[in-house]
Amino acid sequence: MDDRALLAGILDLVDRGQAGDDCAVLPCGDRLLVVTTDMVHEATDFPSGMTEWQMGWMAAAVTISDIAAMGAGPVALLVAAGVDRPARLRPVMEGAAACCRRFGAAIVGGDIDRHRELTVVTTGLGTVDPAKIVRRRGSRPGDLIGITGVPGRAQAALEGYPQFRKHLLEPQPRVAEGIALGVAGATAMMDTSDGLALSLHDLQAVNDCGYAIESGLLPLAAEVPEAEARSLALFGGGDYDLLFTIPGDRFPVPGVEAQIIGRVVRERGVLLDGAPLPARGFAHVWEEG
Amino acid sequence: MDDRALLAGILDLVDRGQAGDDCAVLPCGDRLLVVTTDMVHEATDFPSGMTEWQMGWMAAAVTISDIAAMGAGPVALLVAAGVDRPARLRPVMEGAAACCRRFGAAIVGGDIDRHRELTVVTTGLGTVDPAKIVRRRGSRPGDLIGITGVPGRAQAALEGYPQFRKHLLEPQPRVAEGIALGVAGATAMMDTSDGLALSLHDLQAVNDCGYAIESGLLPLAAEVPEAEARSLALFGGGDYDLLFTIPGDRFPVPGVEAQIIGRVVRERGVLLDGAPLPARGFAHVWEEG
Repeated sequence: MDDRALLAGILDLVDRGQAGDDCAVLPCGDRLLVVTTDMVHEATDFPSGMTEWQMGWMAAAVTISDIAAMGAGPVALLVAAGVDRPARLRPVMEGAAACCRRFGAAIVGGDIDRHRELTVVTTGLGTVDPAKIVRRRGSRPGDLIGITGVPGRAQAALEGYPQFRKHLLEPQPRVAEGIALGVAGATAMMDTSDGLALSLHDLQAVNDCGYAIESGLLPLAAEVPEAEARSLALFGGGDYDLLFTIPGDRFPVPGVEAQIIGRVVRERGVLLDGAPLPARGFAHVWEEG
Repeated sequence: MDDRALLAGILDLVDRGQAGDDCAVLPCGDRLLVVTTDMVHEATDFPSGMTEWQMGWMAAAVTISDIAAMGAGPVALLVAAGVDRPARLRPVMEGAAACCRRFGAAIVGGDIDRHRELTVVTTGLGTVDPAKIVRRRGSRPGDLIGITGVPGRAQAALEGYPQFRKHLLEPQPRVAEGIALGVAGATAMMDTSDGLALSLHDLQAVNDCGYAIESGLLPLAAEVPEAEARSLALFGGGDYDLLFTIPGDRFPVPGVEAQIIGRVVRERGVLLDGAPLPARGFAHVWEEG
């Protein structure tokens, strides 16, 4: 059983309409508040050799990326830290604070607990103009499918390409790009942290259309053999880039470096070069029921 | 080293002005948004014999209590759950959802992760009229010191008094009372989850006055020998009641069952029957640096 199957089993307990986006959305005066929470911990989420500072940075970046994926600007972060050794707390918090500063947010609260395993849960709050918010649902046939950055680099670092190590360990959420894409009229968006293929399937799940991408259009990690780079681009996790759809007359978007990798089609499905693309990517897996 | 000492070492990384209350406070149109996060996990926070449903209820209640302590109404909860066995997730979430429903909030999002130890982090959002918010800072000499409920009952359950077990395992945050106290003009408020003595010291730390309580005014747990009941009332943790200060002409507050246990005095300090009350209570403790 994986985390998606597990989530499906409790969705009835989540407020109707809130599930299925990178953030929950709540009214906040004439703005919308977006809010999201992420748990990361040593055994399953932190690559070996990562410093505490990088763990804190990553914990914050993961959450800020979800805010960026709504076209929103991050405002505040809360950090709940379970630490095995007290001396680890300060560098974790310094990394989280640095990431917040970099993207215009502030740490406003949190909790500290003793824990057998270093565990960091970040909750992020952002705001967005209701006319500029971008959700996962909204793609229309004919829209272009775009992606920021080069997919597969984080996974490449895990598989022995050290030139991508900083990309893996200190991800840079696409905050400015997310906001600009929202202003420009992107119709759907999410981040690619679970990998491109799985993210396309996630968009498919909440839209009544299909996603057809072309392998020849995929940006590929440099200095990696082409077939491997293509596999990493499709199925590798850990990138915090944005996957979006946008009408052709709204693209390119000033200030946003992005590649068009395909097009939204009328018939449901996720296609690579015309053939079904499997829903493989990153998932937490439990071995027993 | 305990969690308070550890917190002191990272306070410079938290947005100035946000530390030292039960919740962070952010602008939200013509309302204020209050937001708080709490980590609970099996080894240190859940009494033995607790069901998963109760763990979920408690995780939600702890957070909703922090919102109540600001005089705010809970709106939304996010739940990040790290689970060792997938079958445990559903009852945890059902307990959290039941607690949310009971107090007018909804679960709007969350995260699921595989974890060696069941770990639940709840983040709560509430809103409050800026004129009705109650912070920890604000007590004035002459104010009455009040408390809802009977302190020490949760700790009594832990120490062998089964009649308080439901109070320990299914805490009822004082949402209606918190809102009513804010409307009535309470000058300072916090919840008593770390125990009454420690909470009085927490108020002391952010106010330029003193807190003088009288042992004869303390409500005591029934069917517990008096000396033990008094000790539990002062130093026992796990109650989710409200400790507040309020001008004498604003008390009693309709709909709020509370006891006056003392008075705010000019000189700094926390006094019990005129003698210093030690700052003992609940804290997470680490054995090494």
